[in-house]
Amino acid sequence: MSTPTVGIVMGSDSDWPTMAAAADVLDELGIPCTAEVVSAHRMPHDMIEWGATAAQRGLDVVIAGAGGAAHLPGMIASVTSLPVIGVPVPLAHLDGMDSLLSIVQMPGGVPVATVSIGGAKNAGLLAARILGIGRDPEAQRIRAALDDYRENLRAVAEAKGAALSERRRQT
Amino acid sequence: MSTPTVGIVMGSDSDWPTMAAAADVLDELGIPCTAEVVSAHRMPHDMIEWGATAAQRGLDVVIAGAGGAAHLPGMIASVTSLPVIGVPVPLAHLDGMDSLLSIVQMPGGVPVATVSIGGAKNAGLLAARILGIGRDPEAQRIRAALDDYRENLRAVAEAKGAALSERRRQT
Amino acid sequence: MSTPTVGIVMGSDSDWPTMAAAADVLDELGIPCTAEVVSAHRMPHDMIEWGATAAQRGLDVVIAGAGGAAHLPGMIASVTSLPVIGVPVPLAHLDGMDSLLSIVQMPGGVPVATVSIGGAKNAGLLAARILGIGRDPEAQRIRAALDDYRENLRAVAEAKGAALSERRRQT
Amino acid sequence: MSTPTVGIVMGSDSDWPTMAAAADVLDELGIPCTAEVVSAHRMPHDMIEWGATAAQRGLDVVIAGAGGAAHLPGMIASVTSLPVIGVPVPLAHLDGMDSLLSIVQMPGGVPVATVSIGGAKNAGLLAARILGIGRDPEAQRIRAALDDYRENLRAVAEAKGAALSERRRQT
Amino acid sequence: MSTPTVGIVMGSDSDWPTMAAAADVLDELGIPCTAEVVSAHRMPHDMIEWGATAAQRGLDVVIAGAGGAAHLPGMIASVTSLPVIGVPVPLAHLDGMDSLLSIVQMPGGVPVATVSIGGAKNAGLLAARILGIGRDPEAQRIRAALDDYRENLRAVAEAKGAALSERRRQT
Amino acid sequence: MSTPTVGIVMGSDSDWPTMAAAADVLDELGIPCTAEVVSAHRMPHDMIEWGATAAQRGLDVVIAGAGGAAHLPGMIASVTSLPVIGVPVPLAHLDGMDSLLSIVQMPGGVPVATVSIGGAKNAGLLAARILGIGRDPEAQRIRAALDDYRENLRAVAEAKGAALSERRRQT
Amino acid sequence: MSTPTVGIVMGSDSDWPTMAAAADVLDELGIPCTAEVVSAHRMPHDMIEWGATAAQRGLDVVIAGAGGAAHLPGMIASVTSLPVIGVPVPLAHLDGMDSLLSIVQMPGGVPVATVSIGGAKNAGLLAARILGIGRDPEAQRIRAALDDYRENLRAVAEAKGAALSERRRQT
Amino acid sequence: MSTPTVGIVMGSDSDWPTMAAAADVLDELGIPCTAEVVSAHRMPHDMIEWGATAAQRGLDVVIAGAGGAAHLPGMIASVTSLPVIGVPVPLAHLDGMDSLLSIVQMPGGVPVATVSIGGAKNAGLLAARILGIGRDPEAQRIRAALDDYRENLRAVAEAKGAALSERRRQT
Repeated sequence: MSTPTVGIVMGSDSDWPTMAAAADVLDELGIPCTAEVVSAHRMPHDMIEWGATAAQRGLDVVIAGAGGAAHLPGMIASVTSLPVIGVPVPLAHLDGMDSLLSIVQMPGGVPVATVSIGGAKNAGLLAARILGIGRDPEAQRIRAALDDYRENLRAVAEAKGAALSERRRQT
Repeated sequence: MSTPTVGIVMGSDSDWPTMAAAADVLDELGIPCTAEVVSAHRMPHDMIEWGATAAQRGLDVVIAGAGGAAHLPGMIASVTSLPVIGVPVPLAHLDGMDSLLSIVQMPGGVPVATVSIGGAKNAGLLAARILGIGRDPEAQRIRAALDDYRENLRAVAEAKGAALSERRRQT
Repeated sequence: MSTPTVGIVMGSDSDWPTMAAAADVLDELGIPCTAEVVSAHRMPHDMIEWGATAAQRGLDVVIAGAGGAAHLPGMIASVTSLPVIGVPVPLAHLDGMDSLLSIVQMPGGVPVATVSIGGAKNAGLLAARILGIGRDPEAQRIRAALDDYRENLRAVAEAKGAALSERRRQT
Repeated sequence: MSTPTVGIVMGSDSDWPTMAAAADVLDELGIPCTAEVVSAHRMPHDMIEWGATAAQRGLDVVIAGAGGAAHLPGMIASVTSLPVIGVPVPLAHLDGMDSLLSIVQMPGGVPVATVSIGGAKNAGLLAARILGIGRDPEAQRIRAALDDYRENLRAVAEAKGAALSERRRQT
Repeated sequence: MSTPTVGIVMGSDSDWPTMAAAADVLDELGIPCTAEVVSAHRMPHDMIEWGATAAQRGLDVVIAGAGGAAHLPGMIASVTSLPVIGVPVPLAHLDGMDSLLSIVQMPGGVPVATVSIGGAKNAGLLAARILGIGRDPEAQRIRAALDDYRENLRAVAEAKGAALSERRRQT
Repeated sequence: MSTPTVGIVMGSDSDWPTMAAAADVLDELGIPCTAEVVSAHRMPHDMIEWGATAAQRGLDVVIAGAGGAAHLPGMIASVTSLPVIGVPVPLAHLDGMDSLLSIVQMPGGVPVATVSIGGAKNAGLLAARILGIGRDPEAQRIRAALDDYRENLRAVAEAKGAALSERRRQT
Repeated sequence: MSTPTVGIVMGSDSDWPTMAAAADVLDELGIPCTAEVVSAHRMPHDMIEWGATAAQRGLDVVIAGAGGAAHLPGMIASVTSLPVIGVPVPLAHLDGMDSLLSIVQMPGGVPVATVSIGGAKNAGLLAARILGIGRDPEAQRIRAALDDYRENLRAVAEAKGAALSERRRQT
Repeated sequence: MSTPTVGIVMGSDSDWPTMAAAADVLDELGIPCTAEVVSAHRMPHDMIEWGATAAQRGLDVVIAGAGGAAHLPGMIASVTSLPVIGVPVPLAHLDGMDSLLSIVQMPGGVPVATVSIGGAKNAGLLAARILGIGRDPEAQRIRAALDDYRENLRAVAEAKGAALSERRRQT
């Protein structure tokens, strides 16, 4: 249980403020993960090596975040058969639309599971959903935690709604 | 092995020419799947029911394709803890950009694993990658098949490249 | 007159700063309304229930605001025959274009009356226009109030224009 | 019942192939409508007059379709207190995005209920939903017809889904 | 010379911070102009009247600025044969792209001379270019002033360039 | 009257199918014009020369059409004080959006009067509106012809509308 | 002189109809080149190897074409210090906008010289311009050939313009 | 070595905060460059002259930055056979998308090597890559410096990654 099963990589440490949310939600769900800077453009050989050996290192899912001409998720996906989740990181211009298209528009044969612009939290949750499909106890634990997570989303939304209705009634 | 583990749903049977590629690649990889029309807008109660009971019915992964204001993948994801893969189906206008944004821009808490516009083949491959992460024999078989698939992509690309170089040499 | 006839729903209480303008203009026109958080993605079953029983609860018009992959207006529209007005709420990225397309590009059969990005005031006014088409006294009252509203728009614009011309003359 | 209550206007008779779907669905629902060419740019005085007297002529809802710099829906909305539904008609370039933005991005004070690009059928259905909110028999009839329409959408989608599943089983 | 020949209109006094640049450059060139709020949506009858009588009032060119679903320039152009210059005013969302498309994409038959987003200064200069084509003394004066203006643009750019080169040399 | 007063230039003879509409409407209005290929990128010196001497050659208005990175209208405008009308010609990709932005987004100081994508007819009409502002007989003739043109637009639209209503009545 | 100095690579042989124009113009200018399929996603290790050894193999410039999530140009650029020219190949959806953004929006440190969507001919010409900057005879020959090429562009454009003017005169 | 071989031009001194990064990286690599304001629109004749004589003045590469309707890079490219690198400078609206399209979408025959929006640093590096292809000592020196630069990018990324991992371990 303590061996990391999710590997979080990003093109630059400036992506961390966005990507931390993936690690946070995995921590919250008790799923060990690593977080590394593995730039497709600045360390291409290391990146290829990282991806090609990810499965051997015991990883089950990769989360890759990148911005602009965001090649990291797709390149990792090309050297591994693990599921790779791509997080489009918004940069100073174009509001992440370039990041999104560079990640999601992969050619037939090499899929990247893309989440929303800046959607690292959902990347973590998607990794958990993937890890939760097995029949072993750890998978069952994760699935149950996700069911609780969804139920909690509902409870929080309901409470906020009630507070809003209350505030309105008092005015 | 013969119980379907991937459920393919789409908003309309007019999405089938796009979505068939998901079923085809799953067939090719020996992964059983179902294909159903479950419209978010035309059969909302059935859709909610379909999604909420997907796990109980033995499904491990859902692939959902839809176009325009494409609500199916996100709504299914909101009632299950299974991984849901969204395929933006391009319609007559906007070239699938509306479908893509409606699927990928999910709020924090409810992830959809989005593939490219019209990218149903990759949805099938992504489902296979997800099913291939386990340690059981079937998962191992799928993982090996995906490794072969990637190796084959390489071989075909190489052969095409050789043919192109040959054609050029002869002219 | 005191039974709410317009139901305002939104995906999150963070949408309220945008959506309050709908309630404000309805208050101004003397049309009772409710305001609730009913998230399509966080409380899907409640949302479906809310929409399916809206007419029975006496509502005549629904105003639904949501952002990003904004599924709330369309999903409500799929479970009721009431007119549903959608308000695209702009989020941190893409300036509301994703919200707009996710709301307006509904498939044939299930209409959503979409207003501008962040246009909650117009959603309120549109609800009033809809309520004002009847021949009963309350509808007549609303119609007259809307005629006054339009006349007032004109008067305010004219006064501002006069002030502008005046300021220019003095410089 | 035989006095038209929905007025369909369009900027040019070349919009009719798109707009006819609004008339068709209203015919199907037994709601009388007119269809006229009233160009904002080619007959501005007539257009203003048409809009300003729409309510007096007994119309309850206006459906206005236009393409490109589509000013017709918004201009009609500025001279009447009736609900105005705008249909963005796609032209040769930009795939209707210009039409959509020209119609939906109305300023606060003057709402247009916008439907999808080319979505005239939904404009007709939205008009019917608006006409169905009253307590009089005709409104009740329309509401019931819309409930049937939605039920029928479901039945057709289900039948198509069954046919698709059947075709798959046979191959 | 003192009768205004350019009429500047805008949809709202909130457009003035953008539109003032048109008046400023006309002042600088000694061309009299008016500046008025004439909203297409809030005062449609006045707007139509304003446009239809613009030529009679002695105006030669109209500059119209508007934002969002910006109908003012096109509507004015539909009721006059004067040249109408449209200025897309950027609003809170979409960065003026909606304003631009609503102004520039006019149907065949009714032209609007569109300048850049927020480009009121160029609208003023374009009006001057138009007024400068005649053979009368005032036109000749304006033409000469525009030639000077262009020469001055060059001189200022050259001076700035020299300053930049100088600053670089010193570091 | 027989000296050309409008100069039509385009970047390539492949733009002629789009640009011919400008010449056609000028012919129809009895306004002499020239049509030439003057490419900004393929004949830059000739283009600069053409623009810089346009006024001396007796031209009053320039219409310039170009596609893609459409630099012709803006470059002509930089070397003359005549009004320059830009026509964005749509090319094989991006539907003319690149042409539009390259023409309309001119910097402060150098205006281009931009018409719609492919809107050469409106470019011709805009040239006529500009030529019609003078007090001399030819200007008066053009103004009157434009008033007739607008009236004719109305008549044709009305006739088409009547035909449409008639067709509907018969079915 | 006969050793290839320009290497043309593309992600798939389906890119060849677009990319052939680069080879054609290089042939025309007497510059030897290779054309190979080197897919970033299907043969990542070969691609990295190809790029990392390009300089050793005697190449001076690389032209890389790819579509969709087009990672090839940027990845090649990350493993070589040669200038890399990227050609965005348009695919079935989005008209090449995804290809363009995936190629041009490279992070600081790793440049790709991007040409227009489908602009392979310009990629060939840009390679020639790069090869023409040296002081050796071959560079001088290329520079002279490019000067001729530009002069020829001018002559052809002028001839086409003359033909157009002639055709107009005869009608 | 001390004669400038790279000429940096920009449309306005307000582009300098963006463009300075090109000069900085060239300084860092020991490549002499000039930086000048040469506006396509404000000093067209000087601009044409500047470009046409760039090669004679000993320049090998031109870097041209401009915003909005960014005509400078393409116009320079039309009067020289030197490689021209275009930098899209983002202005107040549209986030540089207009600048990008105006620069990159050049017609066949006249290439501009376009870098990312605001990507002046990469423009400098691309110029260096171009200057590094020769066999002379200075070219060899530059090539080696670029190899070091890339190696350094890798080292910095690796160090940042290590620091990130370290920070995570401590929390």
